[in-house]
Amino acid sequence: MRTDEKTLAERLRALALEQDPVRLRAEAEGIMPEDLAEALSRLDGAERLAILESLEPSQAAETLVELPTEAARAIINQLPDTTVAHYLDILPMDDAAELREELDPDRFEALLKVIPDEDAEEIRRLLSYPEDSAGQIMTEDFVEVPPTATMAEVLAIIRDASQEEFETVNYIYVLSEDRHLLGVFSLRRVLRTPAEVLARDIMNPDPVSVPVEVKDEEVARIMSRYGFAAIPILDLRGRMLGIVTADDAQEVLEEAQTEDVLAFGGVVGDAEAYLSLSIWQLVKRRLPWLLILFVAEFFTGSVLRYYTKTSEKGGDTLLAQLMLFVPLLIGAGGNAGSQVTTTITRALALGEVSARDWFLVIRRELSVSGMIGFTLGFLGFVRAAIPDPWGWNQPISLSLVVGLALPCIVVWAATVGSLLPIGAKGVGQDPAVMSAPFISTFVDATGLIIYFEVARRVLGMYGLSF
Amino acid sequence: MRTDEKTLAERLRALALEQDPVRLRAEAEGIMPEDLAEALSRLDGAERLAILESLEPSQAAETLVELPTEAARAIINQLPDTTVAHYLDILPMDDAAELREELDPDRFEALLKVIPDEDAEEIRRLLSYPEDSAGQIMTEDFVEVPPTATMAEVLAIIRDASQEEFETVNYIYVLSEDRHLLGVFSLRRVLRTPAEVLARDIMNPDPVSVPVEVKDEEVARIMSRYGFAAIPILDLRGRMLGIVTADDAQEVLEEAQTEDVLAFGGVVGDAEAYLSLSIWQLVKRRLPWLLILFVAEFFTGSVLRYYTKTSEKGGDTLLAQLMLFVPLLIGAGGNAGSQVTTTITRALALGEVSARDWFLVIRRELSVSGMIGFTLGFLGFVRAAIPDPWGWNQPISLSLVVGLALPCIVVWAATVGSLLPIGAKGVGQDPAVMSAPFISTFVDATGLIIYFEVARRVLGMYGLSF
Repeated sequence: MRTDEKTLAERLRALALEQDPVRLRAEAEGIMPEDLAEALSRLDGAERLAILESLEPSQAAETLVELPTEAARAIINQLPDTTVAHYLDILPMDDAAELREELDPDRFEALLKVIPDEDAEEIRRLLSYPEDSAGQIMTEDFVEVPPTATMAEVLAIIRDASQEEFETVNYIYVLSEDRHLLGVFSLRRVLRTPAEVLARDIMNPDPVSVPVEVKDEEVARIMSRYGFAAIPILDLRGRMLGIVTADDAQEVLEEAQTEDVLAFGGVVGDAEAYLSLSIWQLVKRRLPWLLILFVAEFFTGSVLRYYTKTSEKGGDTLLAQLMLFVPLLIGAGGNAGSQVTTTITRALALGEVSARDWFLVIRRELSVSGMIGFTLGFLGFVRAAIPDPWGWNQPISLSLVVGLALPCIVVWAATVGSLLPIGAKGVGQDPAVMSAPFISTFVDATGLIIYFEVARRVLGMYGLSF
Repeated sequence: MRTDEKTLAERLRALALEQDPVRLRAEAEGIMPEDLAEALSRLDGAERLAILESLEPSQAAETLVELPTEAARAIINQLPDTTVAHYLDILPMDDAAELREELDPDRFEALLKVIPDEDAEEIRRLLSYPEDSAGQIMTEDFVEVPPTATMAEVLAIIRDASQEEFETVNYIYVLSEDRHLLGVFSLRRVLRTPAEVLARDIMNPDPVSVPVEVKDEEVARIMSRYGFAAIPILDLRGRMLGIVTADDAQEVLEEAQTEDVLAFGGVVGDAEAYLSLSIWQLVKRRLPWLLILFVAEFFTGSVLRYYTKTSEKGGDTLLAQLMLFVPLLIGAGGNAGSQVTTTITRALALGEVSARDWFLVIRRELSVSGMIGFTLGFLGFVRAAIPDPWGWNQPISLSLVVGLALPCIVVWAATVGSLLPIGAKGVGQDPAVMSAPFISTFVDATGLIIYFEVARRVLGMYGLSF
């Protein structure tokens, strides 16, 4: 099973302290770079650097790529140019391109001049595609053959290639002379076909492909939806540039999902390993949303002030009784709104509904929230009507206010909670940013207006006022 | 790119209404089962059934497997036994086993008697493993060879197998006579090795494998972490039973992540497509959490009653002023708590921290929430001290109460928000169930106690009471 990171981190730290690079290298041998990276993210900067420098270079380079951005940046800034250039040289090109994020542009350019020209050019090409596009996660190392290649020739290409030449040999792509994608077939198919048969006679002539400027997240979703192990990437003129493989797509998807979950909880920023962030970085990622929500919540106070200011003498007891139910009502509105936002945002992300479906969604949400609101309203009415151990005696009119305000607030919360993500998606924004805490806070203030307006009308019918 | 489900659904509906199965089958030809399933989930029961029955059987069977559980169950209940048995026969065994969820046990047993014995036995074997275990998502169709097999023999096995015999041929597993896993090598390696070399001489003798009773989600996480395309599954005595492939693992992971996101938003139940659920099903998934939270929120009311009941005559104005800040304070506590819960739950799910790290986490969260609480407290103090347009005149003592209560509530929320998911994980529960709305509601009531106790003490120093 998996290596235990805590134990591994302790062992590595001890060996780093003993300054025993030989034993450290032996200890790390055979450990997966993903596990090493996680163990390193538990150590401090100096320890990480000492350990990484003791590792065998290819293991060190692969571990560096697996480290969270902040940690990798800190280490690279302390490594000599020759070491970083060596890493760039060892790594697969798409991983090497990823290291650019962690380097300042001047240093990166300088390093590209040190490594072999061909590699530098491929890295430059990958980086020339738009940020977060398919082009930045693809590899150019796929097997391509002309339509007239025989199975024997295909096998010879795979046999004679070095281990690094192709990222995968499981799919063979058939390209025309001007590099248009004509078809694809699997290595398995090659093995089961006589040696003299031509590529064009066995290829699937209708492969699914994606334009290079499509968002990496979209490419990853398409691949995951259909279970593709690799997908061809074409330029704007339909010429094949490379392939995206499932493992890279999977990584993109996981990062996006982590970011969405964090957005739902009201945390901004990139998905980074928890332990690799400093206290100050954690504060920076959490405080902005809290501040926005905090200032927005000031509005709730203003609503309360407005209604209490207009309160008439003699209505003070009634007002105090109304206030008792404020947390219950805004809590119910906030929770109902969060449920709707979460559900709709998820359905939008998975492509189950699109922004064009807004009417369908609203109709469903109004029915659902109507039923939920009625249930909570009934419960709220009963609760408000029950005599209280602290001796409050509440008039039945107040129970009616609570029972009527609840369905109104819940239906309102569901409307806001479904329209905001759909609206965000409609104008091309990430709906997860319109996340649950935002809806809750918005519904807090507006829900209070509904509550006091219902109270004014219902109590008015009983000849009461507050 | 992807087929548009809305348009596709409309076209299929029109053809179903026209009762033109020939044109319908032609229209659906070449459309991926995933797209068909999504289009079908937008239609009603009768339309779905009519369309599915018109499709070519293998396409219909694959579409059925991609449908959400509820929709698939409704359709299967209306299909004749012969059709369902035919589907079970066509499908890969792991997909066929999945259909059991949608069938009642007696009917499933009856169907197993109709399909070929060998298939029925494999389905029964897969289903004998614990629910949600690796055993239920693995396939027995992997390439196995003895250590003495030559490369030529390996190629012959792959060449002579039918298309359905192996789920993947990219990895070849070397098994001893008593079925222990000795090693693994890739098909690519076979092609690059002379025909007479033996399997044992080129195999990687130390493959990563997983015991069969491990949770499917855990298997999927291991595969995704290391980017494995397939992983061997062993029984308790170390004999190899099958492999889990990346596409099945990916599906498990997506379902788990969707469930986690929904749990964060306070929605219970399986991950099902939004549009495939009826209004009543949506209510059933949302109401339970809302009811629990609603009843829990009653406690806030009790706290308010307790403090307002003890309030002395003459303190009414002060109490009313204290009440104005209640939504602001419980909002800040709830949001801060949600952030922490979301972050920690995520870190636990990704294995970045384990339950044993609780002390490390608490130490970090205390520092972070201390800084955040101080910032919000300062802002709250300023806000409370500002003269109000509605003419409230608040004593400085009240601003002090708000400014001091805020850091206490935020730190308390962070403590609860980090300890609850860690505690849940520690006792083997899914931490996502201790989700954001739960923490918010809990912090609402307890935060009020903090607020009024701070108020009692601070106002007491000024000789005031409420």
